[in-house]
Amino acid sequence: MPLKKESYWVRDLTPGTKLRSSFLATDAAVRKDSRGVPFLTMKLVDRTGSVDALMWRLPDELLKGLSSPAYVGVEGQAHEYRGTLQVKVERLRVLRQEEVSEEDYLPTTEKDRRALAEEILRAGQSFENEHVRDLFESMVSDQEFWTAFCEAPAAKGMHHARVGGLLEHSASCLRIAGALAEVYPVDRDLLLFGAIFHDVGKVRELSWDAGSFAYTTEGRLLGHVVLGERLVASHMNALTGFPEELALRISHLLLSHQGETEYGSPERPKTLEALLVHLVDNLDARVAMYVETTTNVSPGGWSHHDNPLGRALYVPDAAALEDSNSEDSNNHR
Amino acid sequence: MPLKKESYWVRDLTPGTKLRSSFLATDAAVRKDSRGVPFLTMKLVDRTGSVDALMWRLPDELLKGLSSPAYVGVEGQAHEYRGTLQVKVERLRVLRQEEVSEEDYLPTTEKDRRALAEEILRAGQSFENEHVRDLFESMVSDQEFWTAFCEAPAAKGMHHARVGGLLEHSASCLRIAGALAEVYPVDRDLLLFGAIFHDVGKVRELSWDAGSFAYTTEGRLLGHVVLGERLVASHMNALTGFPEELALRISHLLLSHQGETEYGSPERPKTLEALLVHLVDNLDARVAMYVETTTNVSPGGWSHHDNPLGRALYVPDAAALEDSNSEDSNNHR
Amino acid sequence: MPLKKESYWVRDLTPGTKLRSSFLATDAAVRKDSRGVPFLTMKLVDRTGSVDALMWRLPDELLKGLSSPAYVGVEGQAHEYRGTLQVKVERLRVLRQEEVSEEDYLPTTEKDRRALAEEILRAGQSFENEHVRDLFESMVSDQEFWTAFCEAPAAKGMHHARVGGLLEHSASCLRIAGALAEVYPVDRDLLLFGAIFHDVGKVRELSWDAGSFAYTTEGRLLGHVVLGERLVASHMNALTGFPEELALRISHLLLSHQGETEYGSPERPKTLEALLVHLVDNLDARVAMYVETTTNVSPGGWSHHDNPLGRALYVPDAAALEDSNSEDSNNHR
Amino acid sequence: MPLKKESYWVRDLTPGTKLRSSFLATDAAVRKDSRGVPFLTMKLVDRTGSVDALMWRLPDELLKGLSSPAYVGVEGQAHEYRGTLQVKVERLRVLRQEEVSEEDYLPTTEKDRRALAEEILRAGQSFENEHVRDLFESMVSDQEFWTAFCEAPAAKGMHHARVGGLLEHSASCLRIAGALAEVYPVDRDLLLFGAIFHDVGKVRELSWDAGSFAYTTEGRLLGHVVLGERLVASHMNALTGFPEELALRISHLLLSHQGETEYGSPERPKTLEALLVHLVDNLDARVAMYVETTTNVSPGGWSHHDNPLGRALYVPDAAALEDSNSEDSNNHR
Amino acid sequence: MPLKKESYWVRDLTPGTKLRSSFLATDAAVRKDSRGVPFLTMKLVDRTGSVDALMWRLPDELLKGLSSPAYVGVEGQAHEYRGTLQVKVERLRVLRQEEVSEEDYLPTTEKDRRALAEEILRAGQSFENEHVRDLFESMVSDQEFWTAFCEAPAAKGMHHARVGGLLEHSASCLRIAGALAEVYPVDRDLLLFGAIFHDVGKVRELSWDAGSFAYTTEGRLLGHVVLGERLVASHMNALTGFPEELALRISHLLLSHQGETEYGSPERPKTLEALLVHLVDNLDARVAMYVETTTNVSPGGWSHHDNPLGRALYVPDAAALEDSNSEDSNNHR
Amino acid sequence: MPLKKESYWVRDLTPGTKLRSSFLATDAAVRKDSRGVPFLTMKLVDRTGSVDALMWRLPDELLKGLSSPAYVGVEGQAHEYRGTLQVKVERLRVLRQEEVSEEDYLPTTEKDRRALAEEILRAGQSFENEHVRDLFESMVSDQEFWTAFCEAPAAKGMHHARVGGLLEHSASCLRIAGALAEVYPVDRDLLLFGAIFHDVGKVRELSWDAGSFAYTTEGRLLGHVVLGERLVASHMNALTGFPEELALRISHLLLSHQGETEYGSPERPKTLEALLVHLVDNLDARVAMYVETTTNVSPGGWSHHDNPLGRALYVPDAAALEDSNSEDSNNHR
Repeated sequence: MPLKKESYWVRDLTPGTKLRSSFLATDAAVRKDSRGVPFLTMKLVDRTGSVDALMWRLPDELLKGLSSPAYVGVEGQAHEYRGTLQVKVERLRVLRQEEVSEEDYLPTTEKDRRALAEEILRAGQSFENEHVRDLFESMVSDQEFWTAFCEAPAAKGMHHARVGGLLEHSASCLRIAGALAEVYPVDRDLLLFGAIFHDVGKVRELSWDAGSFAYTTEGRLLGHVVLGERLVASHMNALTGFPEELALRISHLLLSHQGETEYGSPERPKTLEALLVHLVDNLDARVAMYVETTTNVSPGGWSHHDNPLGRALYVPDAAALEDSNSEDSNNHR
Repeated sequence: MPLKKESYWVRDLTPGTKLRSSFLATDAAVRKDSRGVPFLTMKLVDRTGSVDALMWRLPDELLKGLSSPAYVGVEGQAHEYRGTLQVKVERLRVLRQEEVSEEDYLPTTEKDRRALAEEILRAGQSFENEHVRDLFESMVSDQEFWTAFCEAPAAKGMHHARVGGLLEHSASCLRIAGALAEVYPVDRDLLLFGAIFHDVGKVRELSWDAGSFAYTTEGRLLGHVVLGERLVASHMNALTGFPEELALRISHLLLSHQGETEYGSPERPKTLEALLVHLVDNLDARVAMYVETTTNVSPGGWSHHDNPLGRALYVPDAAALEDSNSEDSNNHR
Repeated sequence: MPLKKESYWVRDLTPGTKLRSSFLATDAAVRKDSRGVPFLTMKLVDRTGSVDALMWRLPDELLKGLSSPAYVGVEGQAHEYRGTLQVKVERLRVLRQEEVSEEDYLPTTEKDRRALAEEILRAGQSFENEHVRDLFESMVSDQEFWTAFCEAPAAKGMHHARVGGLLEHSASCLRIAGALAEVYPVDRDLLLFGAIFHDVGKVRELSWDAGSFAYTTEGRLLGHVVLGERLVASHMNALTGFPEELALRISHLLLSHQGETEYGSPERPKTLEALLVHLVDNLDARVAMYVETTTNVSPGGWSHHDNPLGRALYVPDAAALEDSNSEDSNNHR
Repeated sequence: MPLKKESYWVRDLTPGTKLRSSFLATDAAVRKDSRGVPFLTMKLVDRTGSVDALMWRLPDELLKGLSSPAYVGVEGQAHEYRGTLQVKVERLRVLRQEEVSEEDYLPTTEKDRRALAEEILRAGQSFENEHVRDLFESMVSDQEFWTAFCEAPAAKGMHHARVGGLLEHSASCLRIAGALAEVYPVDRDLLLFGAIFHDVGKVRELSWDAGSFAYTTEGRLLGHVVLGERLVASHMNALTGFPEELALRISHLLLSHQGETEYGSPERPKTLEALLVHLVDNLDARVAMYVETTTNVSPGGWSHHDNPLGRALYVPDAAALEDSNSEDSNNHR
Repeated sequence: MPLKKESYWVRDLTPGTKLRSSFLATDAAVRKDSRGVPFLTMKLVDRTGSVDALMWRLPDELLKGLSSPAYVGVEGQAHEYRGTLQVKVERLRVLRQEEVSEEDYLPTTEKDRRALAEEILRAGQSFENEHVRDLFESMVSDQEFWTAFCEAPAAKGMHHARVGGLLEHSASCLRIAGALAEVYPVDRDLLLFGAIFHDVGKVRELSWDAGSFAYTTEGRLLGHVVLGERLVASHMNALTGFPEELALRISHLLLSHQGETEYGSPERPKTLEALLVHLVDNLDARVAMYVETTTNVSPGGWSHHDNPLGRALYVPDAAALEDSNSEDSNNHR
Repeated sequence: MPLKKESYWVRDLTPGTKLRSSFLATDAAVRKDSRGVPFLTMKLVDRTGSVDALMWRLPDELLKGLSSPAYVGVEGQAHEYRGTLQVKVERLRVLRQEEVSEEDYLPTTEKDRRALAEEILRAGQSFENEHVRDLFESMVSDQEFWTAFCEAPAAKGMHHARVGGLLEHSASCLRIAGALAEVYPVDRDLLLFGAIFHDVGKVRELSWDAGSFAYTTEGRLLGHVVLGERLVASHMNALTGFPEELALRISHLLLSHQGETEYGSPERPKTLEALLVHLVDNLDARVAMYVETTTNVSPGGWSHHDNPLGRALYVPDAAALEDSNSEDSNNHR
């Protein structure tokens, strides 16, 4: 019978926390310190996030390393090193797959998925155009689809790569679209519909059931852009009297949401709503890249260079903004 | 003494309007119709916008064309042709420069500039960080600067190329930034300050006094990115006890707002506020490109291909979204 | 009542031909020779091609030029000038639209469309996989579709921009695909099906009924890549028991035929058949660009630089290949 | 004395084969399975291809890995794992270089080189232009050159990287060129000559004698494009009365065969034959990339992403095309 | 009999000059001023340069414009307008080709060609390596070649597009190379040889005998990079005992001098001398682009945007560098 | 107390040298030879350069490798292997940080820094424009700045990445600029000032005090281009009566020295001096990349492909240039 995870989850760790829990260990490697003493480095992952970890005084069976990914039971303590949170592992035991519940270790949104789903459903009820409302209703009434939509990750790795990530991204885009509809002369219904469902093809492009995220064969052959438009079009075709011009604009908005052909949209946005859906999608994705990259970086520190934004990112020290007596941290010698 | 403009201004024209007014005529050319009859085409510009115009039955002095740009008095009638508003000119007289007030013909925002300025001033008063508030106060208290900021165009041609355009763009970015500050974990003061002043260097990069918009010599040699950062930095340097970290983040945000080095930012955005200022600037600029390109296009019509977005843009027919009985307008034969 | 075209059609002109016929005159302009004498230059177009033309001793009504495009009756003589065929016009009369049959002047394939269509139908009968055969049969039995397929141009301007051009291009791709199926280990049915129908979306993307070629609104919003896949998918969906894997491969092949995302394919080719369909399409298109650009260039001459291949093209002098006593034509001084 | 290779060669392995043979082992590494047990992974190469291999129950001298590349004697069994053929090694012995015949392990075409050479020689005899025929004859009569041409690889790594690869590629291009000469209005002699000899510079750019393929110094300094044109030009210069125009066209065709300057052609193709030689070269190279990348992938499987085409490639399941009752292989959960 | 040019040549014009001379008039067009009065604009070209010109009070035969290019006799006066020198034409007469000496109107270097040639010959005598010296001697002893080298333009339009331009460019590169040989550890002989002869293929790529500069057919098919290497290689092949390594390095240096494959070099520079020859060539070309673009621009003025460097160029006002009391020329309003 | 380095420094090693000295060992790894015997590879670094090293007969504590970077005492012998210098290590001892003087191991220019600084100071005294001279004097009189300028590296890794590297690069650019001022019509003062100080922002962008080179936070947020212009501008602002036009030109020259916006210059060079400063900077940087990449490569050898120039580089064999009897080193078999 699977073990229950003990204290703590990754999200709850802070410098000083003593922990005894289980994780998925990834990227394990044995190195040596400056005195030549071997130590083990790895990432500890659970559904709430990931954290770097190190272990010294290795038992014999770990001297040659740890075959990762592996489920492990860990005892140790969290502390901060050069502005990044780390776990110093005291004891480590490899667990058999039967001992764990896989879903505890698949990255999963920390947000309240039920609340996000309801926020989206409320937006659908607010549509003024009855055809758009019918289309929305038709889609969310498809129980299998709606369940998948609320579970799917938004990507395999770039941003929102977690169970519920698509829902999070869609809700975030919805909120921004709502604000833009107050500022610009757009068709609010179309803009919000697009904000919610532009990435809907991800439910077929990706799989998330086997303990990891992967591309499906039809995802690789057709892509989420076309799969999403197909999915919505099948609902539009099934609705009696759905206006042709409306169907055309919705299909355009879905097909063009990548913004440029080199990112997989067969046409670029040519209506104001399509343009805005692309810009909102891009904005929310880039914010997520910043936030996810800098999760464990402390104030005043820099992230690694190697992340989806392709540059080291700075996490400012909010305290330093108030006070002019801060020491200059730039010593050039 | 300059003539007062008579009825109408460009913005007031609708199909059927009979007009008798003065304009700046640009892009004038004599062509012939399918029967070989010569006619004159031109654009009629005033501070409220521009409209295409045609004139048949040319008097002798117009048979060889019209040297444009030229101020002209015009009588005629507006009508719609292939989805675009046009003026059919009956009579045309070339005016001497002394007969007109130049500022009537320099494109100028239609928005209420006083209200926009007050919206921005209110935002400045809402800043929580006293240093940012002091900086804002220092800038808007510089009367010469603030007047220029409220008058400057946001560009020479791409978008918001009109007197007051910088103010319009800044206020629009401010509104969007305000909404984003509710959605994302950012420093609201810095985000709003950046939204307002990211393009402040335009007041030195461009000139708008000689009846047209032009680049200044320092604008071409240093560029608005550096000129803007310099301008804000001179205020920060003058404030006692302005925190170094804060000055660094504000300078970074101003220098990086173009988003990519190829667009003239010496560094790419590396803080969340800098990233968002860039994204908001880009979003508002692209929406303006769409709106300005499609101003005179009728529902269901397409703009020209040659515009800042580099593609023909569609102006959907809102009516067709409601009704499924619309005829298919795509006859392929 | 429309006039019948008299002798000659453009394709029949050779140096020395005296002609008296009607054409669509385009790109008309009045210039002056080195003695200051004005002359008229234009292109004469009919369904069989186009040729440059010049006219001296202009009557008064032509001194100010000719509003083009215009249907014109012409008398004159063809001759060669600097390696390119030209018509020297003696008399020219502008015709009213009622005097001509528009289809005589819309560029149209010179090939035997019936024979090309039969070649394609025979290929369809040769398919070994019954599902592919059924799909083919389903498509060509749709009379409205098949008529459109045999009439449509393959493009608005790049290559095969003529009535029947899509049929020509498809048949040419079919022949090459047939040869490749002998050389490489491919699924012949899929390769040939793709060679024939990869551009099938052009029948909805383009219109060719109003005396010229144009994009439709759905063509601009969705693009021929998606429109073509949609069209074929609707036939596959209607066939009972059509294998899912087969449908997936055919959809992939249609969606990926542009080869790269920047040319409008949402995914790049990932099966051997998809790769070959793209390569064959590209090969035939480039050959057509060469052939169409150099139509009127004489042996030893160079085309203009401004053509779809973006470089001046050489038409070698076949005679010079046989004989080593040719004079060196490269005099550098 | 070198050992004779025993059963089997790589090409003969199928799931279930028990083998006892010698190979070049490359990319050897020791890993651990999920229970922490160490095992050895490597590639086994011989002239007929390469296959992945694994070995468990490592003897002590292999626990720290295997210095690769190394010639090894192997006993084991072939089987299929996740759609790719593998060898499970039971026993492994490192061989001294004197024990093997190096040429048994250098990748070598499986095609009949004599037959390919004869196919090319027959094509040369079919040329109608006597000068082209003389040139061809002059080249193939140079025994040292012709031997090298029949032995050289076509590349160091991208495609046809095997002894005889240049011959294979040339013969394949020849066949396609032969088909194209039936479809397009080209000079057949030049097209076929170019198809055969466009890559002839590879015989000087590459070396293949020291147990591996490498670039020569003149290959790196001058490149195969110029080296090939030089080689052919030296034959043309030696032929009396060779027409200048013909020499120019052949040189152009050789120099421009890379198609674009960024791929190393000093000029882009400007004659129809040059254009076609480039397109045929490109087509055959890309097909080879697909075929070589997917050699060991089973039906329904995907290749790695990292290959010359830069994308994962799909090997369809031919069986699934016939039958509509296949289960949906896309489980999204 | 051709007329002798009277006073003045273009290079001798300054504001205030009254002139009576003959020129090649190009780019002629009739426009109208702000009062509607027609005037003629054109460029006046002779071997010493070109200058903009305008003519008012047009005689009847010029009202319809001037067929250009045309040789013209002109009376008028030079003056400065908005920082650029112009000629105001009082009288204009079209000349017949027999009345002029074509070479007076083909742009020609103002430098002393004899002195430049001697500078190069002296450099050749200074080579220490006897093989390089022999090669140099062999080339400059070929009278036909050396005459062409001293006459050829360095390009058709980008920079040094004038008779003697290749000589000028080569001598300028030689001087810079001479200085670099003092600073860097290079083979001076090879660097200087490359500086002098890297563009030698221009003598075959271009023609300059028919009153204008043009590409030859072999220039378009083979390009100056290969033509130059061929030319030098033919001399190296003819010299007994020329070291193979030396020939290889010289060929590499000639083939790689464009620096990147996209600019037509089949290989990039891989020796220090080859790298420097490319950098010197590029440096001198860019300086020439600046100088030629700004020839007629006055201090403090800006060139047009449309020139080989792709940006407006500034001609600073040297006087303003000395004196701090200059008025600020940037009026932003 | 730190140990003094014994014989030898890296720069003094030649094939055959027996050494006993201390180094910073980096990139250490244990491999096995073809007989399975383990050996250690590493780089030995000191302030004079770096060299590859190998060690066989490993003592037990080294069998598992060496944690690098580590300070090590080494005994062994230098020799050449495949054209590259190597050290064969006999004995190796890990040193504690207290045993070494860190600055002995930080890469440092071999040039005479005092002489370079004096060369630059002399150039400053030679300026004719008194304002430029005052500016120069103001900068070099700032003792803290001048010390930093003479110590800073010119980059973190691309070229001149060593203590004193900025000084070396600046002096080298100065020499070339001096030669160019003789050849082209430039303002010598501005060109030389720019050559010396274009990279001055590096003193704030980089730090070099902690035993390695790194970016500072303000370096990453503002970049050396803006930091350098700021630094010089603060001096110009402090000088009374500094001409505005001169300040503008100097700021432009500093801001534009990267040449293109994608390399971090907000504007491209638009004056001749700015253009030349960029070209000289680029030239010297590329030469340094060649020289530093090929330091340890023997005549006739090739560098690795992976270096800042992105291609394998050739080190020619000077001897082979003299003698034609060299054997052909290109055996293609």
